[in-house]
Amino acid sequence: MLPHIFRYEISPHVWVCLECDGILHSSQSDFQKIEVVHSLDFGKMLVLDGVINLTERDEFVYHEMLAHVPLFSHPDPQQILIVGGGDGGAAREVVKHKGIKKIQLVEIDGEVISVSKRYFPSLARALDHPQVNVLVMDALRYLKDTEETFDVILIDSTDPVIEQSGGLFTVSFYKDCLNALTEKGILAAQVGDIGFETNLVLGVFSKLKTVFPVARIYCAPVPSYTMVPYGFAFCSKTIQPEMATPSRFDKSFQTRYYNPQIHQAAFALPEHLREDFEN
Amino acid sequence: MLPHIFRYEISPHVWVCLECDGILHSSQSDFQKIEVVHSLDFGKMLVLDGVINLTERDEFVYHEMLAHVPLFSHPDPQQILIVGGGDGGAAREVVKHKGIKKIQLVEIDGEVISVSKRYFPSLARALDHPQVNVLVMDALRYLKDTEETFDVILIDSTDPVIEQSGGLFTVSFYKDCLNALTEKGILAAQVGDIGFETNLVLGVFSKLKTVFPVARIYCAPVPSYTMVPYGFAFCSKTIQPEMATPSRFDKSFQTRYYNPQIHQAAFALPEHLREDFEN
Repeated sequence: MLPHIFRYEISPHVWVCLECDGILHSSQSDFQKIEVVHSLDFGKMLVLDGVINLTERDEFVYHEMLAHVPLFSHPDPQQILIVGGGDGGAAREVVKHKGIKKIQLVEIDGEVISVSKRYFPSLARALDHPQVNVLVMDALRYLKDTEETFDVILIDSTDPVIEQSGGLFTVSFYKDCLNALTEKGILAAQVGDIGFETNLVLGVFSKLKTVFPVARIYCAPVPSYTMVPYGFAFCSKTIQPEMATPSRFDKSFQTRYYNPQIHQAAFALPEHLREDFEN
Repeated sequence: MLPHIFRYEISPHVWVCLECDGILHSSQSDFQKIEVVHSLDFGKMLVLDGVINLTERDEFVYHEMLAHVPLFSHPDPQQILIVGGGDGGAAREVVKHKGIKKIQLVEIDGEVISVSKRYFPSLARALDHPQVNVLVMDALRYLKDTEETFDVILIDSTDPVIEQSGGLFTVSFYKDCLNALTEKGILAAQVGDIGFETNLVLGVFSKLKTVFPVARIYCAPVPSYTMVPYGFAFCSKTIQPEMATPSRFDKSFQTRYYNPQIHQAAFALPEHLREDFEN
């Protein structure tokens, strides 16, 4: 049966409908239902437990902003950890940076990786890059046990409401991340819709603030997630997101969304959200 | 009959549904069908010919960005023209500025004004402000004939696809606007959805560029219009939107969306749109 209309909720009485013409894949992994659906205007979509995880139309916005904002804020990022990100989109952006020595990717669900390799090869190809080391295991356990340290940690998880990601939105996990960061280390994470789910995001952000000396919110429009700019957190021990060395953005690689102006602009919060997120 | 669901299109195969519980008003003026619909999550909505013109939830974003970006870019705005804006939202923002001597508002449809006074008094109240002079006539004719000049012109019209607004999106009209601007004059206009209707907006923008020495695009999220930041044009004879005097934003009045950081950030275009709009 084809899902003629894929529907996702923005708020209790607002939803978006995408016309679709086929389910390309549907399976149940040990962790979640994995589907690949083809929509007419957003292209192929990876859907996890009924929630859009990425679409061909706008995944570049999400992955570029998750990766390049922290990477261009760090003076010399070499060791990178990606939590989740089994589709390969975040890794694809990280490998573009010069000077990267190792990218450790820890994805809990191996089936996300194999489905992505089949249906999203332009993303998943990065997982075969020689710098990328893929580990299929629970990142909670990985970070508890690892003795490695990282310059940048990217949390590319599903939403906090989804069961197997719940542990990734706790103070305990954030402390393990902090401990695994080098002195100039930066963590970036997707935190949700700051316009329609402000309280949910504030809850996540308040936990980050109890752990990280620097905690900031930045935004980018990802229409397949929501109708207003989507929120990311930028956290560090000392570094602020205002780029220390803008010259590092040297156009040695192409981007479709990110540029230095967007980097700065993404941190400008509307007046009605500043009080919530800047105190 | 109640429209349980109000639906608006984002692109041919994507639409948004708003759950509604009542039509508060419905009439046919000489120019358009005017409705006031109550939606559960966006509050009261002014709907013109079936298209959302404003909602209680997000009109502040639209009106603050239309008005404050040009007004804070001008060193001393005194004479202001609002084209359209019969709901009063743009005027409400303009009257907040110190030093304003006169606001000339030219709305083609008197019924929009009377409906707004009844259903959106917090906006329409500004139309009774002593500085505001309301004229019910076609702004095309007004600008052809007027000998007055203005420091700032705000074009707060319906979309170019709507018949009676078509004339407001022509080179001829833009030339009349240019002629009515003082030497440091600025025009701001809503130009549409630069993400899902890029070509439509490029068409409008290319006309503005043939007339105005300075033409720039800026954006703000208005979810009741579209799912990505909505586009405005900033045009002038000489002035650039980077604020000459940020100190003028002196917090003598409150805003909910606009602030100086948002002012700057709104002009940052994503890499994939820069080529289109910055050449």
